[in-house]
Amino acid sequence: MDRKVIRVGMLGLGTVGSGVLQVLTQNGEEITGKLGSRLEVKKIVVRDVSKKRGVGVDPSLLTDKPEDVLDDPEIDIVVEVMGGVEETRHLITRALENGKYVVTANKDLLAQYGADLLQVAGAHGKNIYYEASVGGGIPLIRPLKRCLAANRILSLRGIINGTTNYILTQMSREGKEFEEALSEAQAKGFAEADPSSDLEGRDASYKLAILASLAFSSRINLADIYVEGISEVKLRDIRYAAELGYAVKLLAMAEENDHGLKLRVHPVLIPLTHPLAAVSNEFNAIFLNGDAVGEVMFYGRGAGSLPTASAVCADIIDAARNIKHQVENGIVEATFGEKPVIPIAEQVSCFYLRLKAKDQPGVFASLATAFGDARVSLDMIIQKRSDAETAEIVLVTHGVSEGSFGQAIAEIKAMPAIKSINSILRVMER
Amino acid sequence: MDRKVIRVGMLGLGTVGSGVLQVLTQNGEEITGKLGSRLEVKKIVVRDVSKKRGVGVDPSLLTDKPEDVLDDPEIDIVVEVMGGVEETRHLITRALENGKYVVTANKDLLAQYGADLLQVAGAHGKNIYYEASVGGGIPLIRPLKRCLAANRILSLRGIINGTTNYILTQMSREGKEFEEALSEAQAKGFAEADPSSDLEGRDASYKLAILASLAFSSRINLADIYVEGISEVKLRDIRYAAELGYAVKLLAMAEENDHGLKLRVHPVLIPLTHPLAAVSNEFNAIFLNGDAVGEVMFYGRGAGSLPTASAVCADIIDAARNIKHQVENGIVEATFGEKPVIPIAEQVSCFYLRLKAKDQPGVFASLATAFGDARVSLDMIIQKRSDAETAEIVLVTHGVSEGSFGQAIAEIKAMPAIKSINSILRVMER
Repeated sequence: MDRKVIRVGMLGLGTVGSGVLQVLTQNGEEITGKLGSRLEVKKIVVRDVSKKRGVGVDPSLLTDKPEDVLDDPEIDIVVEVMGGVEETRHLITRALENGKYVVTANKDLLAQYGADLLQVAGAHGKNIYYEASVGGGIPLIRPLKRCLAANRILSLRGIINGTTNYILTQMSREGKEFEEALSEAQAKGFAEADPSSDLEGRDASYKLAILASLAFSSRINLADIYVEGISEVKLRDIRYAAELGYAVKLLAMAEENDHGLKLRVHPVLIPLTHPLAAVSNEFNAIFLNGDAVGEVMFYGRGAGSLPTASAVCADIIDAARNIKHQVENGIVEATFGEKPVIPIAEQVSCFYLRLKAKDQPGVFASLATAFGDARVSLDMIIQKRSDAETAEIVLVTHGVSEGSFGQAIAEIKAMPAIKSINSILRVMER
Repeated sequence: MDRKVIRVGMLGLGTVGSGVLQVLTQNGEEITGKLGSRLEVKKIVVRDVSKKRGVGVDPSLLTDKPEDVLDDPEIDIVVEVMGGVEETRHLITRALENGKYVVTANKDLLAQYGADLLQVAGAHGKNIYYEASVGGGIPLIRPLKRCLAANRILSLRGIINGTTNYILTQMSREGKEFEEALSEAQAKGFAEADPSSDLEGRDASYKLAILASLAFSSRINLADIYVEGISEVKLRDIRYAAELGYAVKLLAMAEENDHGLKLRVHPVLIPLTHPLAAVSNEFNAIFLNGDAVGEVMFYGRGAGSLPTASAVCADIIDAARNIKHQVENGIVEATFGEKPVIPIAEQVSCFYLRLKAKDQPGVFASLATAFGDARVSLDMIIQKRSDAETAEIVLVTHGVSEGSFGQAIAEIKAMPAIKSINSILRVMER
């Protein structure tokens, strides 16, 4: 079946949808050349067909009835770029049941129902493509599934939320406080009006669930990911970190050892010599460690209309290739098991701690004793005078179990000479 | 045809071949899980079957007769990791004619005969996979062919030779001169006993030919690539570059405009803020600009037994998938045209120039006049006293045609006050 035309139906025509239309139009000739078939967008489902659209959208393509796409036997590929979870899930299920390939950029949906949807796809001999769900245009899903297929992935660490990375970069480079950097990110369109999902690390945890699932061939429950956002990161800490040779980034991390998976999203002090430390502003990067390939990193724009459309269109082309060649392969994810997850309390971290203490003899000795009692060994120390009676102390520990560290902190908090514990952050080992 | 076992024959068992065998063994279970079939290495062609091999090679697999692999109808995939060009080309041609898929890591062969071999493959409904030919384990070929398929690639710039990058990094970080850094690279196994192909940029030009061919859907003749190596790069220039905010790297670059392709390999001063500037030692990275995706970078180990084996094995798995599903697609390269190439003399560059002049009034004015006459405008200037009578002058120009710059240099050389022109390097625009 060598088809001359392969027909695409779209659900949604927002930022990403418009980008998809633009890419398919402006690079249509090249795509036809590479694919050997022409891609034709036949219908686009929108909420309001009368709304004014940008140039280049033929109004006759628009409909407000999802069935015009889902039930049209001429449409081979359904591209979901409308967002949302519950309604969208039902539309995608129906598309798969009707024998269509599905391309989606919807990380929220995939993180929550990805395994179920992949099972529906498998049952109908079709597939779901989701390259655009993580890292925008950066190739990640396909490299994990194909290019690194011969590797056991040991760990992955990613800057996969552009909003928080933009804010942290601005704090670090321009000396802005969190609130100011956030307002600027909102003004530039790098942060949404309600930025809580980004700032609190939820967005990154969805993306981590998708990546870790593929990297470790395991279903991931969102509840198993330890998540901490960046709203407690102070400019003061970013400056101390720089003094100690670190950049502060929100990292999504996954790692496997003999006991199971470690899954976490939180701010991390990254050594300035590490390639991830140089990833700035709205850029994303994912750093992987495979048993054969060693360290690899993928870097690029993690969001935006055209970068995301680049990934969506690559998926459409892949789906079209499989339709041309009648291949229904690659549904490996549907068969994933569920690996045990190691709770955060049982994991080992290095910590950065900033506190204020009375500037009097013996304070540091008692601090050191508290750490020693909890078997926490110290790597770096800065002590500065804060005012006449107060010293500000910054410490970086060697690797220690989260439990032992918590115990040391409880003991320190109870010491009369300690005025306040101002910041606790985790540190990537050099 | 859902095959339980897919059989592999290998040509060669050197560094990369041993790595392939190791990866297929240690991750065999995972690979079978992902592929749904078991990969079995049936025969390995070596020059000397009696030579002592590392652990884990079953001697009964070894043969010194290529026909034991090429003509065995049970073998589906031929993995070429023996290197060399002429003999290897004939062996691969025979494998394709016998209906086998071919996986190769051989950049020299591909840069010279890739288009012909892909045509043979196409004629027999088979394919050649060559992910490992550029960038070792870094996924590059597949991302270019698949993940960025919807993009028109505007430009690519890569650090794709680990030897030269190791040497330049050591010169820059440890203050070593070229010769010392080269000896050390040889001692550490990052440079060969005869390093000329690496140092003179030939190795990088082969890899560039492969990448540019895919990126711009055009056959590339090696003779069309302008190539300059690193043996003229002085520690002194690396230090001046750092003072001006640049790192010196050997870059392979390709770019397309309305008139054709620009293809070049030479040392470049890269702004320290550019992600490529942070790629150090034996690491490789390729920075791409696509019209939809924007800037993306792929980073990792560009050589070594296991990283290269990671890419070879990914290709084997892909070939096996296509055999399972009887797909003979993806031979887009065989249909490439040949785009015009813009000669270096017609290209525009920014230049770094270091020279010595008599320390006397009016010298700088006459230099500036010479540049002005040739319409070369200056971006940065450093002048230092070299000895009592000599000033060392370092200049960075704005973009200028290579022809105009050559004209200015000829004029300057003829000036009595100019003692010597010590270095000319090109500069990446900020």
